[in-house]
Amino acid sequence: MANVRQLVSDHSLMERLARGSEPNFSSTSPGEYRYHVGDLRRYLSDEAFTWYKAMVEVGIVKAFADRGMFPQSFAQEVGHAAGLVSSKEVAQEEERTRHDIIALVNMLREKVGDDVKPVIHRAATSYDTIDTANAVRFRDAFNDVIIPDVTKLLREWIGIVRLESDTLQIGRTHLQHGEPITFGFSMAWFVDRLGNGMLEMARASDMLVGKFSGAVGAYNASSLFVSDPMKFEKEVLAQVGAVPADISTQIVQPERIGNLAHFTLSNFGILANWAHDMRNLMRPEIGEVWLPRGRDVSRSSTMPHKANPIGFENIQSLWKEATGRMVTMYMDQVSENGRDLTNSASQRYTPELFDMFDYAVRRATGIAHNLRANHDNMRRNFEMGRDVITAEPLQLLLAGLGRHTAHEEVGRLADRAVAERRSVVELAVEDAELSKYMKKLTEAQRNVLAEPERYTGEATRKAHEIADKWEEKLDQLVAR
Amino acid sequence: MANVRQLVSDHSLMERLARGSEPNFSSTSPGEYRYHVGDLRRYLSDEAFTWYKAMVEVGIVKAFADRGMFPQSFAQEVGHAAGLVSSKEVAQEEERTRHDIIALVNMLREKVGDDVKPVIHRAATSYDTIDTANAVRFRDAFNDVIIPDVTKLLREWIGIVRLESDTLQIGRTHLQHGEPITFGFSMAWFVDRLGNGMLEMARASDMLVGKFSGAVGAYNASSLFVSDPMKFEKEVLAQVGAVPADISTQIVQPERIGNLAHFTLSNFGILANWAHDMRNLMRPEIGEVWLPRGRDVSRSSTMPHKANPIGFENIQSLWKEATGRMVTMYMDQVSENGRDLTNSASQRYTPELFDMFDYAVRRATGIAHNLRANHDNMRRNFEMGRDVITAEPLQLLLAGLGRHTAHEEVGRLADRAVAERRSVVELAVEDAELSKYMKKLTEAQRNVLAEPERYTGEATRKAHEIADKWEEKLDQLVAR
Amino acid sequence: MANVRQLVSDHSLMERLARGSEPNFSSTSPGEYRYHVGDLRRYLSDEAFTWYKAMVEVGIVKAFADRGMFPQSFAQEVGHAAGLVSSKEVAQEEERTRHDIIALVNMLREKVGDDVKPVIHRAATSYDTIDTANAVRFRDAFNDVIIPDVTKLLREWIGIVRLESDTLQIGRTHLQHGEPITFGFSMAWFVDRLGNGMLEMARASDMLVGKFSGAVGAYNASSLFVSDPMKFEKEVLAQVGAVPADISTQIVQPERIGNLAHFTLSNFGILANWAHDMRNLMRPEIGEVWLPRGRDVSRSSTMPHKANPIGFENIQSLWKEATGRMVTMYMDQVSENGRDLTNSASQRYTPELFDMFDYAVRRATGIAHNLRANHDNMRRNFEMGRDVITAEPLQLLLAGLGRHTAHEEVGRLADRAVAERRSVVELAVEDAELSKYMKKLTEAQRNVLAEPERYTGEATRKAHEIADKWEEKLDQLVAR
Amino acid sequence: MANVRQLVSDHSLMERLARGSEPNFSSTSPGEYRYHVGDLRRYLSDEAFTWYKAMVEVGIVKAFADRGMFPQSFAQEVGHAAGLVSSKEVAQEEERTRHDIIALVNMLREKVGDDVKPVIHRAATSYDTIDTANAVRFRDAFNDVIIPDVTKLLREWIGIVRLESDTLQIGRTHLQHGEPITFGFSMAWFVDRLGNGMLEMARASDMLVGKFSGAVGAYNASSLFVSDPMKFEKEVLAQVGAVPADISTQIVQPERIGNLAHFTLSNFGILANWAHDMRNLMRPEIGEVWLPRGRDVSRSSTMPHKANPIGFENIQSLWKEATGRMVTMYMDQVSENGRDLTNSASQRYTPELFDMFDYAVRRATGIAHNLRANHDNMRRNFEMGRDVITAEPLQLLLAGLGRHTAHEEVGRLADRAVAERRSVVELAVEDAELSKYMKKLTEAQRNVLAEPERYTGEATRKAHEIADKWEEKLDQLVAR
Repeated sequence: MANVRQLVSDHSLMERLARGSEPNFSSTSPGEYRYHVGDLRRYLSDEAFTWYKAMVEVGIVKAFADRGMFPQSFAQEVGHAAGLVSSKEVAQEEERTRHDIIALVNMLREKVGDDVKPVIHRAATSYDTIDTANAVRFRDAFNDVIIPDVTKLLREWIGIVRLESDTLQIGRTHLQHGEPITFGFSMAWFVDRLGNGMLEMARASDMLVGKFSGAVGAYNASSLFVSDPMKFEKEVLAQVGAVPADISTQIVQPERIGNLAHFTLSNFGILANWAHDMRNLMRPEIGEVWLPRGRDVSRSSTMPHKANPIGFENIQSLWKEATGRMVTMYMDQVSENGRDLTNSASQRYTPELFDMFDYAVRRATGIAHNLRANHDNMRRNFEMGRDVITAEPLQLLLAGLGRHTAHEEVGRLADRAVAERRSVVELAVEDAELSKYMKKLTEAQRNVLAEPERYTGEATRKAHEIADKWEEKLDQLVAR
Repeated sequence: MANVRQLVSDHSLMERLARGSEPNFSSTSPGEYRYHVGDLRRYLSDEAFTWYKAMVEVGIVKAFADRGMFPQSFAQEVGHAAGLVSSKEVAQEEERTRHDIIALVNMLREKVGDDVKPVIHRAATSYDTIDTANAVRFRDAFNDVIIPDVTKLLREWIGIVRLESDTLQIGRTHLQHGEPITFGFSMAWFVDRLGNGMLEMARASDMLVGKFSGAVGAYNASSLFVSDPMKFEKEVLAQVGAVPADISTQIVQPERIGNLAHFTLSNFGILANWAHDMRNLMRPEIGEVWLPRGRDVSRSSTMPHKANPIGFENIQSLWKEATGRMVTMYMDQVSENGRDLTNSASQRYTPELFDMFDYAVRRATGIAHNLRANHDNMRRNFEMGRDVITAEPLQLLLAGLGRHTAHEEVGRLADRAVAERRSVVELAVEDAELSKYMKKLTEAQRNVLAEPERYTGEATRKAHEIADKWEEKLDQLVAR
Repeated sequence: MANVRQLVSDHSLMERLARGSEPNFSSTSPGEYRYHVGDLRRYLSDEAFTWYKAMVEVGIVKAFADRGMFPQSFAQEVGHAAGLVSSKEVAQEEERTRHDIIALVNMLREKVGDDVKPVIHRAATSYDTIDTANAVRFRDAFNDVIIPDVTKLLREWIGIVRLESDTLQIGRTHLQHGEPITFGFSMAWFVDRLGNGMLEMARASDMLVGKFSGAVGAYNASSLFVSDPMKFEKEVLAQVGAVPADISTQIVQPERIGNLAHFTLSNFGILANWAHDMRNLMRPEIGEVWLPRGRDVSRSSTMPHKANPIGFENIQSLWKEATGRMVTMYMDQVSENGRDLTNSASQRYTPELFDMFDYAVRRATGIAHNLRANHDNMRRNFEMGRDVITAEPLQLLLAGLGRHTAHEEVGRLADRAVAERRSVVELAVEDAELSKYMKKLTEAQRNVLAEPERYTGEATRKAHEIADKWEEKLDQLVAR
Repeated sequence: MANVRQLVSDHSLMERLARGSEPNFSSTSPGEYRYHVGDLRRYLSDEAFTWYKAMVEVGIVKAFADRGMFPQSFAQEVGHAAGLVSSKEVAQEEERTRHDIIALVNMLREKVGDDVKPVIHRAATSYDTIDTANAVRFRDAFNDVIIPDVTKLLREWIGIVRLESDTLQIGRTHLQHGEPITFGFSMAWFVDRLGNGMLEMARASDMLVGKFSGAVGAYNASSLFVSDPMKFEKEVLAQVGAVPADISTQIVQPERIGNLAHFTLSNFGILANWAHDMRNLMRPEIGEVWLPRGRDVSRSSTMPHKANPIGFENIQSLWKEATGRMVTMYMDQVSENGRDLTNSASQRYTPELFDMFDYAVRRATGIAHNLRANHDNMRRNFEMGRDVITAEPLQLLLAGLGRHTAHEEVGRLADRAVAERRSVVELAVEDAELSKYMKKLTEAQRNVLAEPERYTGEATRKAHEIADKWEEKLDQLVAR
């Protein structure tokens, strides 16, 4: 990305962002006054969009200059202008021109000499600029901020996996008590899912493409100036660190950004699952995890004794807001006869989606850092089912010894065990029929039945295996 | 709404809104820097939300004062404070308290005497304030701005219905030419749909409810202070012009706001259908409607000859953005065990939905005002099928005379008519079998077959019928 | 609906349905082999659709006959034919004609005399038949089956409200313990929501409309036969118990069926919320409700001790499947230039939505019938927070006595109370500052603080109030 | 997949499918009576699901046998039983057991000797069987049917690209005429998008995983029987040609199937875009493509002259039905605390999504085969804008010569050109200022301005480039 980025200062942009960085509470948009990541405004705000679009315009001029069609100084002059142009002046000019890119081009032209004016936006159509700028800024946002943020969250989670790899917890299905696992194992489940999702998200962001193929995608305009417009397209895009689509119309293929949105939402769903699970483990009756009061746990306005898990709830709530937006992506795939503009306004909301996601990632990271397992409560909850948890290994072992009716028989014993508050294993030993099989058990098997806390299978080993896998992958990612 | 509104000045609010009304281009949210209705910020912005919540707090104090539990001057003092409180100071206090309503209450208390401080927020839970404030501000927004805006659009559309009630247009199905209608008739289709939808939207907005039933909805707290808390709830809500839900938990029933969102989206879909149809009628090959260059029709950045229907495209694009958000409403219905807070962040985006819709309504109104039918092109397109349009009346009349195979026979003749560029009626007259029936036609029937432009049925009458219906209803609505 | 229904026997239909009523496991559709309501096949199956469409065709013939345009015997003959026509023969004919309604008309014509053949489908377009048939069959399905099924569920729920109106339960917010309510109160919350939703659903189903306005909605064809086609449209639709839309194109306004779908989904969300809450109350650690093993609670395939709440899970899972389908309804609103056919296939899935909902309603009814509250566990969970639940009334009463810092002070005491396992009230009495206020409390106020189980506010009264309201409304509905 | 597939006959399955393959019109589900692909029932029907689940059960037995834990004859006996088990008997047994997998296991046990009975389902939980069966059958469905079907469609499309690579067509944006392209180029746009999407879909289907990690994913049960349960899991899954997830709970990670659903829907959107575009090009006023009457173009039931593009409409309508279903996938990611069962019913609808997509692919293939370009109409439409199409190259060339106000000036000339029905180039030549620049144009540049049909840039070359690329890739895919 070296070439053009050196020509375009972001000093003026950073100043405007700093000035405007205070939330505007007169806004209707929660993304403005409440849920956003400051670091992403460099990529996702309207000011940033203006900057990236101006940079693409510089890239076009530079590519022509590199072909010797006019002096390199032209590119430098446009580069300087691009560093200064603001969203506000473009918006004002758009009031007059009724066209955002014409307005941008005019504001650039205003800032350069008369000889340079006509070379700006040469052979380009609006969406050469817009689609390329979006590809570059979104990829930058993911590479510079979002992916690193996800890796931070993964490292926090991996920390819990390691710390709690051996912590006994009852495994649940249907919200009922199943068989024992460890808390580290249950956290590893989220690590692996989000790790996989992050790699897919990074791949999708790397696959974003730009274009310099003109108004209908057939290089009509650029073929007036160069004899090899497809090659020239590559040169233009290389200026800003992008690659072209294999074929485009006025716009690039909508599927690429749709894929990135999908993986973002899919990863959002994993955060939501985690937040949902953890705040359920914080129910007073369960109490398996704990968070300190503060940013993510607040009192009630009327009930001062409460500890409300508002951080978890916030993550899940933003996910709910985001989820339906995939529909917009699918609808935007149908652009009539080459392209209509009905994806224009909707597309402007895409940055908000990435912003919301990253906000949730950061919030999750802060929470994960403070999250504590309550080993006593985990043990207490495990003990609730001690008498019957062994029903599974019991029926398996009996079946293993050839008792094919074991499942139904042990089911009946389990009901009795609950009713009589006795152990299902004891009842099996007392049972006339089953006792014959019980005698054939090995000592190791007896031990599992006697101490169901031993019945965690490979939970600890698997937890570490997953932690190892992702520590290695995250290290590779950094080294990249 | 008289009582409390007199106590709470909106002077300070209007000043803050005016100061902040300039779009903040540092924002990521298009609803901040691009798509919003200024007049709605009085209801839908965060500043306005703060104002409405503060007003509800005043209503609570006033209702206690009206019961003689402390002096009326307390309510006046809180009323004065409520007029001054700003989103910014509440946000800063929330940084400390980690609770938005505690922060608001603190900012109110700061502005009143020590004797008044403890009566603020008495017996209330956060969502008594929040849900009631939302009910009132959304209803205000619909009554004061959105519904009137929709009526303006309807009046523009009705104007077209009247003007073009008699303008011949080919009626289309499957995008193919069917039978003739009039352009006024095709506009009446949208008038009736949007008129119906507006009434449903107004009904849904009137059905929004508030609450003063405390933290879990059972009036636990208020029953400490009054012996008839259900009656008292009505008194509190009457102070701000609201009525209570029949039963609530910490929150009101989520279905009410969901219904309002649905009708808003359903009406948005009607706008989208209209925008879609009109910009298709603007295709060069069709050319049945026309718009002047300007806000809603722009040139291309590279193709100066073009007339791009960007206004229509914008409406449809915002609809695409909005549509999937209904999913959030449905997900927010599942609030765990009384209520969890996972509807909190998502709910803050609801105002944006109403804002987007109203923005589209206003844009549609401006477009409708400038829209012109091109009678020549409508006639030209009609003429394209003159030879075969009569296939329908022909087969019907033949069948009416007892020829039950008419549909298939006329179908074959129509294919021939197209191939030979002759009239399907002529071919029927020449047909040995069908000519027997053709002779039995009445003169009026022959006229329809000879001049298919007469075959518009009741199109003109229906257009006026619909215009009459809605002019009457809109007049009643104003008189309300 | 009298007129035409007498002419069209449903004997043959019922036979075909009976024959085909066995699930076809070769199907890919769970709605075929697993989730459907047998009683609804009379309205929602393809066979039923054929029957209703044929009945509309009879209605058209009958309306012409009533005007004396041909003998009444024609209508009887078509009525007889309509009773016999099967989906299978229509499907086979459609293979040839490539048009479903032409195929239906051909199958009817095949069954009548040559003089009757040409009068069938006179002046009608396909969607006169289809939209009218859908309006009538959906309204029938709601009136005959779905609404009555919802009332049965409501009565089961009301039974629980009455039975448990006084059963102490801790009220929850954020999944944390708030203030006490009663279990009857928490069930009343669902009764009122579903009751309201049922009335809206019934209203939306009553508002479905049909049409007899021809191919482009302008009565082009019918005006060839009658001089007052709008009046005649009403007569045709009255034959099958329907009313016409105020204006239609080839199709009726899509918003009506969209509204019905919305209210169905909104009610589905209420079922999902209830199912979610109840199965969470069945967690072993909570145990506040209980269901017997059987249809809705199953063992695991490997863990015989488990009691999996599969009935609740099934309801919630079907809701998840259904929710996104609203998007289709919104997309179907945009039908190009009068109408395109892109709503045809999608519309055929609408019956499945109603079927899934009713399946869930019936399942919920069966579960509600068996659901039992576990009073001991409710009391045990309540006791968990006994020491701090009184924090709310305590701070309110202290504030009521003028201590405006009470909320923060009591918050700190509550933290101590939890840590020291003592009562927050005791700590307040010991507090040097607060003890001054504690002495000023009335006896009744002291009692609430001493026995937080009394702090249920109006929970019991409200439960009965809601039960009264809906018993009365359901009785009115039956009387209708 | 060799091992186990040899043990399990599909003879009985194919018989049942053949018997049941006739649509059941008593069904409510269009996927049963109307929209499905017969060839997919082998994978996606309930019968097929039963067969695959039974096969997984055989795989488990075989893996134990391969470890020498019992005779190989046991696996053969279960393999034989698996080939015979029918959905109907399982459904009947499920009525009794209230558990689908217990029912399946019972039906298998019924068919084997007493010594074999207890080894069936050893150490497995239901979802070991279900998730693995789904992974295998979905991958089979994609590999055997869906991917090959998409390649057939791509080959048809490529055929059009080649045939029409040079056919002049006006390129459109905003539905307005932009610059010329070729029809082959506009088809290449769809080829590349669907080609890319197909590869992603195939990748996602290959990434589906199974599991044999037991009830809570920690290998609790299998560790009772083998000392290396993670290795053993791989052996079990290899029996049926699958690989395990890196970590699972009771279920595999929901993101994998979500990704496959996303890519399926994304590809569906491409079909919808194509169908939308083509049927718009079939508008009588445009007439650029043509289809013969038949399966995909039908007459109206009342207007025999019409040619309704029902095939295209059907594809787009099924897309509308499918799109919202992605929401279900996202909701299913949140499975509470390890897993709840609220993804069970919803998951049963996933096959329908794949079925609908493939149905649309096949329909599109049939249509593409018959689709014809109308060169005359393409030329006629192109000629409509001949006078102004050159406005783009004109302003570009003028700007290239240093006239930086060219865009606005040429815009004004274009307006005049339209009004006066003259060429914008002529007007430029006559213009006092611009004529100075016009003289400086090269001959090649003059030619483009004189003959805008030459102004197609690289359209033809790009069309072939894309065709080459995908022919090569499709050949590789076959060779795979």
